[in-house]
Amino acid sequence: MTKVLIAGFTGAMGQQATNLVNELPDFEVVAGLTTPKHADDRALLPAGATVYTALADVPAGVADIWLDFTLPSAVYENVKFALAHGMRPVVGTTGLTDEQLSELQALAKTNQLGGLIAPNFGMSAVLLMKFAQEAAKYFPDVEIIEMHHEDKKDAPSGTALNTAKLISQNRSAHQTAPDEHESLAGARGGDYEGIKLHAVRLPGYVAHEQVLFGGAGEALTIRQDSFDRKSFMSGVKVALEHVHELDQLVVGLENVL
Amino acid sequence: MTKVLIAGFTGAMGQQATNLVNELPDFEVVAGLTTPKHADDRALLPAGATVYTALADVPAGVADIWLDFTLPSAVYENVKFALAHGMRPVVGTTGLTDEQLSELQALAKTNQLGGLIAPNFGMSAVLLMKFAQEAAKYFPDVEIIEMHHEDKKDAPSGTALNTAKLISQNRSAHQTAPDEHESLAGARGGDYEGIKLHAVRLPGYVAHEQVLFGGAGEALTIRQDSFDRKSFMSGVKVALEHVHELDQLVVGLENVL
Amino acid sequence: MTKVLIAGFTGAMGQQATNLVNELPDFEVVAGLTTPKHADDRALLPAGATVYTALADVPAGVADIWLDFTLPSAVYENVKFALAHGMRPVVGTTGLTDEQLSELQALAKTNQLGGLIAPNFGMSAVLLMKFAQEAAKYFPDVEIIEMHHEDKKDAPSGTALNTAKLISQNRSAHQTAPDEHESLAGARGGDYEGIKLHAVRLPGYVAHEQVLFGGAGEALTIRQDSFDRKSFMSGVKVALEHVHELDQLVVGLENVL
Amino acid sequence: MTKVLIAGFTGAMGQQATNLVNELPDFEVVAGLTTPKHADDRALLPAGATVYTALADVPAGVADIWLDFTLPSAVYENVKFALAHGMRPVVGTTGLTDEQLSELQALAKTNQLGGLIAPNFGMSAVLLMKFAQEAAKYFPDVEIIEMHHEDKKDAPSGTALNTAKLISQNRSAHQTAPDEHESLAGARGGDYEGIKLHAVRLPGYVAHEQVLFGGAGEALTIRQDSFDRKSFMSGVKVALEHVHELDQLVVGLENVL
Repeated sequence: MTKVLIAGFTGAMGQQATNLVNELPDFEVVAGLTTPKHADDRALLPAGATVYTALADVPAGVADIWLDFTLPSAVYENVKFALAHGMRPVVGTTGLTDEQLSELQALAKTNQLGGLIAPNFGMSAVLLMKFAQEAAKYFPDVEIIEMHHEDKKDAPSGTALNTAKLISQNRSAHQTAPDEHESLAGARGGDYEGIKLHAVRLPGYVAHEQVLFGGAGEALTIRQDSFDRKSFMSGVKVALEHVHELDQLVVGLENVL
Repeated sequence: MTKVLIAGFTGAMGQQATNLVNELPDFEVVAGLTTPKHADDRALLPAGATVYTALADVPAGVADIWLDFTLPSAVYENVKFALAHGMRPVVGTTGLTDEQLSELQALAKTNQLGGLIAPNFGMSAVLLMKFAQEAAKYFPDVEIIEMHHEDKKDAPSGTALNTAKLISQNRSAHQTAPDEHESLAGARGGDYEGIKLHAVRLPGYVAHEQVLFGGAGEALTIRQDSFDRKSFMSGVKVALEHVHELDQLVVGLENVL
Repeated sequence: MTKVLIAGFTGAMGQQATNLVNELPDFEVVAGLTTPKHADDRALLPAGATVYTALADVPAGVADIWLDFTLPSAVYENVKFALAHGMRPVVGTTGLTDEQLSELQALAKTNQLGGLIAPNFGMSAVLLMKFAQEAAKYFPDVEIIEMHHEDKKDAPSGTALNTAKLISQNRSAHQTAPDEHESLAGARGGDYEGIKLHAVRLPGYVAHEQVLFGGAGEALTIRQDSFDRKSFMSGVKVALEHVHELDQLVVGLENVL
Repeated sequence: MTKVLIAGFTGAMGQQATNLVNELPDFEVVAGLTTPKHADDRALLPAGATVYTALADVPAGVADIWLDFTLPSAVYENVKFALAHGMRPVVGTTGLTDEQLSELQALAKTNQLGGLIAPNFGMSAVLLMKFAQEAAKYFPDVEIIEMHHEDKKDAPSGTALNTAKLISQNRSAHQTAPDEHESLAGARGGDYEGIKLHAVRLPGYVAHEQVLFGGAGEALTIRQDSFDRKSFMSGVKVALEHVHELDQLVVGLENVL
C-alpha cells in the first residue's frame, strides 16, 4: 500500500485528487496539509488520515508520495520539505522559477529521490505533446493552433508554447514559408523558432489544441480537447503509478510515459 | 438553348469551362475569344463555334452569356464590350479596380443587363461565405482560420478576408477578448474590425478555410476544402443557370444563391 | 412589454428560461405553472409573478407567450390550453405524437395564433440543420457523423436524423457509392434515403454533429458542438423575439430564422 | 553508397521510387526489373543502371536493397528471390497471403537478412497507427472514422482495419456503450473487438483517417490526410534508411520508427 499525503486537499483540485486516491486499490491517503483557516475541513479526508496545518508539523516519511495541489506561493517550500523528508513529490501546482526548479532538482539528486512536476496532468494534452515531438522528426513543417474560452488573458497558452519547445528540439529551426507577406499584421501568428502559433479566443470553447504537420501530398493533425477539469485526474493516476520508477525530479508527464 | 461565348478558351480554366458548357444540355458554346497567337487552338472549341482573336471582331449579340476566364489586363475591356453589345458577363477573371467595377456596374444599369463577377467559383467557398454571414447574426463572436500550401505568398487569403468583410456587415465591430496579452506577437492573428484571422502555410495542404463561431456553451464551425481546381466548375454552372435572373452586375456568387 | 408565462418553471430548463426572460429588457415573467408539490418554489419566479398549480386556474390571456419546459405527459394539454386561451406557445418539451401535433396545428389555425415547437433550441444545431438543408441543393452527396457521450442509448441522435430528413427534402434519394462492399457489417453506417449516418459514442464527448458534403475536387463541412445545456437559451431568446411574427404553429426553430 | 534495384520501375509508383532514390545522396539505382514488354523503357532508369526482364537474369548481390513496387501476382517470387540472393527487400506491393508471408519470414531468418513489407508508406498514416496504438494504453475507449473518395469499393479501408488491430493489442476488448440501441441499423458502425469503425465515401475526398479517443472530460484525436500518391515517398525514404538495421522481415513501417 503506497501512502499519500495531499497538500492542498481543501482546494478544488485537492478534493478531486483525494477522491482519486481513495478509489485506487493500491494507494491510501494518510495525511493532508492545509492552512489553519481550513483546519475544520478534515471531513474531506478519509477517516484515519491526519490533518496538518503547518509544514513543520509533518513528520519525516509520513507518506511515500507528496501530492501537491497548493498555490504558487507555497509550492517551492513544500517540495523542498518533501524531498528533505523522504517523500517523492508529485506536483500539479505551477509557479516555480527556473532557479527554484534547478535547486529542487539538485536536492532530489542529493537525496536520491525521484519526483514529478507536471504543468498539465491532462493525458490528452500530455500525449499530444509527446506525439508532436516525435512526429517532428519526420514532418519538419508544423504549426500550432490553440483554442480557449474568451476569458483567457494570455496568448498563446502555456501548453501550446511548451509543445512548440518540445517540437523545436526535434527539428532544425526554419521558416516554412520565409518570404510571405502579411496584408494584415499578425495573420501568420506568433513565431517560436520558425514554428507558428495561433491562438483563438471564443465563448463556448474550453481548452483545445491542434498541431498540424504538412508534408508532400499529406498532412498529420493531432488534436486534444479538455472539456472539464476532471480530465486532469487520469494523468495524476499515471503519475502516482510511475513516480517510484524515477531517480530524478522530472518536469512534464510526457517524460514519464 | 442559351448561347455562350468563352473568352480565354485556350487557358486552363477556359478549357474546363468549355468542357462544362459542352456537357450542359441547355447551353452551347457558339464562340470563343483568344489572342492571335492561339488562333490555331480552335480544336479546343466544339465544331461550329467561331473563334475570334480581336474584341472588335465579335458581333453584337453573338451569344447570350460572355463567360470570361482571361487575364487581369483584359477583363475590363472585355466586360465593357460584352455589356455594350448585349451579352451578360459571367466573369472569373480577377484584377478589376474599384473604379472600373463601379463604371461597369453603371454601364450594366444603363443597358439593363445583369451579370456576375465572382472572385471564387468554388461552391464550398461560396456557401461557407454565405452561411458565415448569416450565422454572424446569431453568433457575434467569430474567428477565421485558413490553411494553404507553403507557396502562397500573401496572408490572409483573399477569400478569408472577404469572409471577414461579409461577416462584419452582420455584426457590430467588437473584440471578443479585448484585454488579452500576447506573449508572442501575432499569436492572436490579424484583425479585421474585431474579427481575428489566422493563416496557416504548410506543404501538403491545398486551399482550406474554417470559420469558428462561439456562444454560451456551444460552437458552430463551417469548413471548406478545395482539393483541386476542377472544384470551380460547379459554381460556374450555378452562375450560368442564374445569370438571366439578375438585373444588375452582381459581385460574388454568394449573392446569387 | 411582452408578458411570458413559464410552464415548468421549477425544472432545470424552466429555471434557466426564467433567468433568461428576467434579463431581456422587453419581456417579463408574469406567471408560472407547476405541480402542486412544487407550489412552495415560488421564489424561483420574480416578485409579482403569479404561481399556478393547475391548468384550469390560469386566466385566459394572462400572458402573451406560453413558454413550456414541462414533461412529455403534460405538453399536449398545455399547448391546447394556451392556444384556446390566447397565448402563443413556445415549446421546448418533446413527446407530442404526430396526431397530437396535427390537432394542435389545426387549433392554432382556427384561433389564428402562431407558435413554435422546437425539439432543439441550440442555435448551433439549428443553424447546422438550416445550412445543411440549403447546401444539399448544390452538394447532393452528403454524410452525417454525430458524436455523443457514452451514456446516450439511441443511435443516431434525433437531431442527426432530423438533419437527414431536412437534407432529403432538397435532393433526390440516391446512394453515393451504390456498389460498395462492407467487410465489417455496419462500417458504412445507417441509411436514411441514401444519406449515411454514423454515430460515435465516447466518454468525454458531450453532443456534437458534423455534416460532410463532397463534390468534384472540394468538400464542405458544417459542425456544431454543444458543450453545455445553457447553450439552449440563445435559441429560446430568438424564439421569444420572433413568435409574434408567426401565423401558424411552426415546428423547428430553423423555420423561423 | 547503397545500391538499389527497383522491381517494377516502369509503373507509376516505381517511377516515383526511381526519382526518389536518384535524389538521395547515399543511394543509387543500379538495376531495374520489368516485364519483357516494357524492355524499351530503360530511359526511366539513370544511365548506367542495368535493366532485367526476367527474375532469373538478376545476378546475386547486384544490389543491397530490392525495392519492390510490382504486382500482387509477382511479389511472392520476387521477395523470395531477393532473400535467396542477398538483397534486403523493401516492399510496397500488396497481395501476399499469410502463408506466403510466414514462409518469407522464415527464409529471411535462415538467410539472416532483414527487410520490410509495408502496406502503407505514407508517413502520416504510419505515424497515426503508431500513435493510436500507444494512446490506447491510456484511453481504452476509441473509435475510427475513415473518409475516402466515392469510388473506393471496400469498407472499412485496410489502413483503418489495421489501425483497429494495432489498437486492440493495447487494450482489453470491450464495448464502450454496450446496451445501446440502433434506430437505423449500422449507425454505430462496424465492430472490431469492440472498436467501432465508420467509413465515409464522398466525391472530393481522397484518403483520410481519424482515430478518436475519449476519456473523462477530455478527448484526443489523431487525423491523417493523404491528398496525393506522392505522399508515399517520404515513407520509402525512411524505409531505405532503416532497413539495414533490421534482422528480420518486418511488416509495417510503424515497427521500424
